[in-house]
Amino acid sequence: MTLYMIGIGLGDEKDITLRGIERIQSCSTLYLEAYTNVPGTTLERLEDFFKKKIIIADRSQVEERTRELLHQAISGNVAFLVIGDVFTATTHIDIFLEAKKKNIQVEVIHNAGIFNAITITGLSIYKFGHTTSIPFPRGTTRIDTPYDVIQKNKSLGLHTLVLLDLDPFQDHYLTIHEALRILLATEHERKEHVLVESDFIVCCARLGTDNVITYGSIKNLLALDYGKPPYCIVIPGTLHFMEEEVLQLYSIQDNQK
Amino acid sequence: MTLYMIGIGLGDEKDITLRGIERIQSCSTLYLEAYTNVPGTTLERLEDFFKKKIIIADRSQVEERTRELLHQAISGNVAFLVIGDVFTATTHIDIFLEAKKKNIQVEVIHNAGIFNAITITGLSIYKFGHTTSIPFPRGTTRIDTPYDVIQKNKSLGLHTLVLLDLDPFQDHYLTIHEALRILLATEHERKEHVLVESDFIVCCARLGTDNVITYGSIKNLLALDYGKPPYCIVIPGTLHFMEEEVLQLYSIQDNQK
Repeated sequence: MTLYMIGIGLGDEKDITLRGIERIQSCSTLYLEAYTNVPGTTLERLEDFFKKKIIIADRSQVEERTRELLHQAISGNVAFLVIGDVFTATTHIDIFLEAKKKNIQVEVIHNAGIFNAITITGLSIYKFGHTTSIPFPRGTTRIDTPYDVIQKNKSLGLHTLVLLDLDPFQDHYLTIHEALRILLATEHERKEHVLVESDFIVCCARLGTDNVITYGSIKNLLALDYGKPPYCIVIPGTLHFMEEEVLQLYSIQDNQK
Repeated sequence: MTLYMIGIGLGDEKDITLRGIERIQSCSTLYLEAYTNVPGTTLERLEDFFKKKIIIADRSQVEERTRELLHQAISGNVAFLVIGDVFTATTHIDIFLEAKKKNIQVEVIHNAGIFNAITITGLSIYKFGHTTSIPFPRGTTRIDTPYDVIQKNKSLGLHTLVLLDLDPFQDHYLTIHEALRILLATEHERKEHVLVESDFIVCCARLGTDNVITYGSIKNLLALDYGKPPYCIVIPGTLHFMEEEVLQLYSIQDNQK
């Protein structure tokens, strides 16, 4: 039988593809990973829509759940639903690998994830460098990894997508303000001119659903309220005039008109 | 009224999302860009499926078509269908920008594109650097830009997605063999040890549909037949053990068993 790994997109139940729905209809068991992002829908709405019970795969149970779903895929079709795209956000590739090792048939049904949604900023996806993330700070204001990544990408003229830590089960999200404060505190200590308050960057909330996108100086972006999560930040590299022109659609001045 | 910019995915008509279909139903005019990729379907099948006539937006007419569709979006709903995702492959962002400037309402409906499909190689999308492409050679065997990009990405441990030039209207596609020969010829002239015959890379055909994926040395990959286009190549950067393990699923030895 088959393990279907199905991206369900970033919005609600209408963002699934026809192929995804067809495959789900053939499955006796449905799992939903719910620890990497915030759906624009609810478990109940998805269950109503698919007319099937969905088992939530909590991060703490991921190994146990993986064993369970691989075991079930030997005797029946199983769907593993992922918010956004299947292999973008996390380590679901290990489930794919385990299934392949056990000679379980796997079909991957892709969908739009953060790397698709971000293109509405006008920034060319071809010009993004290494993606980085800012973790919840644990007793420190300085966090070096994202700073290093931004520095390297900038040196090549590349954009940096900065993801912000989140723990949906605890309803805990690193905010844009916290993330910017961490980057500025790191700059303050290292003084390598990677990111200063006057730099223009892009701050986003709920990409793929509400699409709150703002472009402006870090100083001005710190004064805004972004509403609900999830959030991300892009530090632009060298801008093509077309990228600059699209970004102007999102400039804070425009938004405050 | 609204201009709907809708990604239809990389496979066939079943890869569209429910939201995409819903929006298409509300449109009087449908355009399909058909110059950046090869659909796993035909125009006729799409027209049958949507029960609507589709106008092909040829690359040579793109400016004229853009004016036309923006004009139509003032008085009615218009759908602009893009193979893969909306803003991934080319410069459709200029249509988005023009619409916004004219105060035409635009809704973007994302779908999976090459940056989603490539993740089935096991290579982390977070670790890709600048994307590059190899053009049809015009009287030269050496092409510097992709070589430079691969060199820079490799120096940071990043993977490079290399797209190969294509002209679907002329049924003309740069092949994997031609692309590898160009890269090796460039190496032969520049001798900067960016890419040699013994290097292990990934060659792909028809990603998102048939998914032909091969991992091996350039020397061995040159001996393979990849079938129909489209093609792409990935030059891996530093590999995490999990990436290496997934790539082994595609190693040429395994494929030839």
